[in-house]
Amino acid sequence: MDQDKLDSWLEKRKLRRLNRSAEQLAEGILNKDRDALSTAITLVESTRREDRKIADELMSRVLPHAGNSIRIGITGVPGVGKSTFIEAFGKEVLRHRNGLAVLAIDPTSGVSGGSILGDKTRMDELSRLENVFIRPTAAGKSLGGVAEHTREAIILCEAFGFEVILVETVGVGQSETMVHAMTDFFLLLMLAGAGDELQGIKRGIMELADCIAITKSDGDNVRSARNAVRAYKNAIHLFPPDPGGWIPRVMDCSAYEHKNIDVLWETVDSYRNTLSVNGWFEKQRVRQNEYWFTESVRNKFLDDLYSDLSFREAFAHYRDKVRAQEITSFGAAEELFRKIKSTNA
Amino acid sequence: MDQDKLDSWLEKRKLRRLNRSAEQLAEGILNKDRDALSTAITLVESTRREDRKIADELMSRVLPHAGNSIRIGITGVPGVGKSTFIEAFGKEVLRHRNGLAVLAIDPTSGVSGGSILGDKTRMDELSRLENVFIRPTAAGKSLGGVAEHTREAIILCEAFGFEVILVETVGVGQSETMVHAMTDFFLLLMLAGAGDELQGIKRGIMELADCIAITKSDGDNVRSARNAVRAYKNAIHLFPPDPGGWIPRVMDCSAYEHKNIDVLWETVDSYRNTLSVNGWFEKQRVRQNEYWFTESVRNKFLDDLYSDLSFREAFAHYRDKVRAQEITSFGAAEELFRKIKSTNA
Repeated sequence: MDQDKLDSWLEKRKLRRLNRSAEQLAEGILNKDRDALSTAITLVESTRREDRKIADELMSRVLPHAGNSIRIGITGVPGVGKSTFIEAFGKEVLRHRNGLAVLAIDPTSGVSGGSILGDKTRMDELSRLENVFIRPTAAGKSLGGVAEHTREAIILCEAFGFEVILVETVGVGQSETMVHAMTDFFLLLMLAGAGDELQGIKRGIMELADCIAITKSDGDNVRSARNAVRAYKNAIHLFPPDPGGWIPRVMDCSAYEHKNIDVLWETVDSYRNTLSVNGWFEKQRVRQNEYWFTESVRNKFLDDLYSDLSFREAFAHYRDKVRAQEITSFGAAEELFRKIKSTNA
Repeated sequence: MDQDKLDSWLEKRKLRRLNRSAEQLAEGILNKDRDALSTAITLVESTRREDRKIADELMSRVLPHAGNSIRIGITGVPGVGKSTFIEAFGKEVLRHRNGLAVLAIDPTSGVSGGSILGDKTRMDELSRLENVFIRPTAAGKSLGGVAEHTREAIILCEAFGFEVILVETVGVGQSETMVHAMTDFFLLLMLAGAGDELQGIKRGIMELADCIAITKSDGDNVRSARNAVRAYKNAIHLFPPDPGGWIPRVMDCSAYEHKNIDVLWETVDSYRNTLSVNGWFEKQRVRQNEYWFTESVRNKFLDDLYSDLSFREAFAHYRDKVRAQEITSFGAAEELFRKIKSTNA
């Protein structure tokens, strides 16, 4: 059993053993008890029915104390230097704000949570600081589930008092769009000169970025990093504008030389100021809440449907007919719907 | 009553009066009877239960004869010169392929179908040609519905024998993503020098394009069109690659001077050849079919849920609580789900 699995197992055990009530957990969090925070996050990640009830009560209790943070989404493919960047950036953040929580999502990891991102030793210096909390989220089987408990973890961390929440993910899968939809500011880390086609960032992600930072701009890389900055600046100029009026920034940076790490924080800060003045900052959060509510409702009812064996069998049957081009997609959906409805009626 | 509404009304009336069977309609379509094709499209657009049954049978009959076309999606904001472009491009297409169908989707128009796109006089010359079929799709209340009947209209047009299908939409709303997901090749029309921020193309759309064409590159506009080409070429170079290995093209064009209209067709043709060789062309269509099947199933079951008054009331109640930040999005969804389930149990 590796360290992560052990940690996860210990926490689950602790959760059962302590059997702490929602009230106790909420109180603990508001009193800056880190154990309570950890336990609470484990609780909201749990899929057990009785845990969920406690979690719901806990969330109602902490919700009035949440929201006072800036939520920053960070993505970039493996190799871009994300951990090193977050170490440097995190320390910069702490010079300006009180408390930093890092929630790491790895959509490629298994349910048990063992993963590159789950490795606490990855952000070694940062994790040793007092007012820093680093937590890999257990990647459930569905991205919808991950989104739900990550959003709850954000709220728990805010209630605890962390003024900045970083939500990091790897630039593969669907997780960037998800992280974008739950953060205020979306930072895309890119490598220069590695051949852009190798970076694996999915179509559409670049246009979501509020800032693109070219990492590892030190030593021999400076020249190519600057070229990349120029190229991305030109590209970004062609993008449709952000609805809040923010013009995405592009810069190079080096965690190693601490280059532009301060400018990146200033960018985040300026984003918050600009968008707070025109009301977009708050508006975006309300829109995100509504979006996640609608998504959660859809997911719950669809999961319920898909959990039915006879539905799954019929679905597979019609999907095969669609694949074989024996029936149109719509016709197949129609027949499937009628079949299920007539069975249940 | 304007011409479109009249046409639409007449066709619906014809549909009822003729009461043609699925068999007759299928036979008519395969025998290149344009009336049969029009009636069939009206039929698949119908939401009446008895019409839907005939439509399903019709689709099963024509499906084996469909698929032999290239499906081109075209989008661009109002003012980009879409109709003029399609007139010129359509005539070029007919020099190389047999038969052209233009399906126009206007997500902003009402249910009755009266709209700028519905205006048949808009593509005057093209519409008078013998082997051309132009059809505005009646925009239903849901985009899902529009997607479904547009996809069926594509299949009907293919069964009729049109070798090229253009699906055009305006660059607003959600319709571009939808059109992208139902076509083989996605062409984005852009204006030069109008200030890109004014063009209203949504974030993420540019990255979907297989080709960007800068329109109206004639007279005084040539210089700025060429600058735009250079800028977009640089930008596109930074985009993640198409999974099929296609590198998106950028060019200027002029419908007025017939400039690069032939090159645009060659681009489409080269796309088809390249992606047919590596198997991606067919693979993409199968993926699209599966995507639409899954989407249709979700939509059907969700529509069924949302059509329930008690669900809608409960949904509105919890959405308001989410807006007021009295409850988390997930907690609200959970409560709503439990409530509906316990009512129905």
